[in-house]
Amino acid sequence: MKFCSHCGSDQLRFDVPEGDNRPRYWCPACQIIHYQNPKIVVGSLPVWEGRILLCKRSIQPRAGYWTLPAGFMENGETLQEGAIRETWEEACATVNLTDLYTVFNLPHIYQVYMFFLGELADGRYGVGEESSDVGLFLPKEIPWDELAFPTVTRTLRFYLQDLATGEFPIRVQDIAPLGTPEP
Amino acid sequence: MKFCSHCGSDQLRFDVPEGDNRPRYWCPACQIIHYQNPKIVVGSLPVWEGRILLCKRSIQPRAGYWTLPAGFMENGETLQEGAIRETWEEACATVNLTDLYTVFNLPHIYQVYMFFLGELADGRYGVGEESSDVGLFLPKEIPWDELAFPTVTRTLRFYLQDLATGEFPIRVQDIAPLGTPEP
Ligand SMILES: [Zn+2]
Ligand SMILES: [Zn+2]
Repeated sequence: MKFCSHCGSDQLRFDVPEGDNRPRYWCPACQIIHYQNPKIVVGSLPVWEGRILLCKRSIQPRAGYWTLPAGFMENGETLQEGAIRETWEEACATVNLTDLYTVFNLPHIYQVYMFFLGELADGRYGVGEESSDVGLFLPKEIPWDELAFPTVTRTLRFYLQDLATGEFPIRVQDIAPLGTPEP
Repeated sequence: MKFCSHCGSDQLRFDVPEGDNRPRYWCPACQIIHYQNPKIVVGSLPVWEGRILLCKRSIQPRAGYWTLPAGFMENGETLQEGAIRETWEEACATVNLTDLYTVFNLPHIYQVYMFFLGELADGRYGVGEESSDVGLFLPKEIPWDELAFPTVTRTLRFYLQDLATGEFPIRVQDIAPLGTPEP
């Protein structure tokens, strides 16, 4: 952020505004504070006849790696609408969501991930815009070494655990910066 | 948003950028797209010896009405850290969180609310910066007609329901624009 989006001034400051308690971008010219807040990434774990839908990413970051369909929540939509939209965009698939399943804090990159469980509406899918391949995987076929993000790895790992019991409790967890070993 | 925060241009446009599928603020001069995404409001439902901590708001919106401690999640913190911080700022109280309890979509104002259950650490509290009064309320004392937000009303209502059973399952719900009758 180099210019004030409100008045165009190039004299933005980044320090603690008066009456606040943490550094912000703010504009001495027009006094506007430019708040920045974490973003939500929403996704789904779509299942069809015991198989899980995964998408091979065609874009950075992590191009060539497999992911559950997920992406940034947009203004004007609900969490569920976002998860459904991302599943459509990345896998050309219609998913019927059931429950919220995993919530991950990624404070180092200012993100919160939220995955919903779901079922494909009709088993159909295709290769969406940001994917180079899409497929349905049996649990034993999941490409663990080629998963794109720890949020995906954990969500899939919980799902396989929970399949054994048939109970799918929500998990709220933190994820450490990349390079930190997964527990 | 009137000026590009990247290059200072005053020729920002608001329409669908090439390769995108929804209108955004973007800058023809430097080609930057200014994404805007929903914000997370985090809060807690702090309990002490069967009483619930509520704060009377001293700031707009809804000054003079009672709320659970809650506010915008900040960059660099987890959901839980945000809920704990807000409880400290608004009620000078230390809360030990247990479980995520309610998640509300407010798509019309681009927000997602998330409340955690918690217990006060030591029963102590005070009147924080954005409050004019803070108190502990027995269930029968809750000022239902003076609550600030439907997210607070619903969270409290679920909590009282769940007290009867001792089970506190997570709720994920939508909240309609103000003026829409509460179900
Ligand atoms: Zn300015
Ligand atoms: Zn620009």
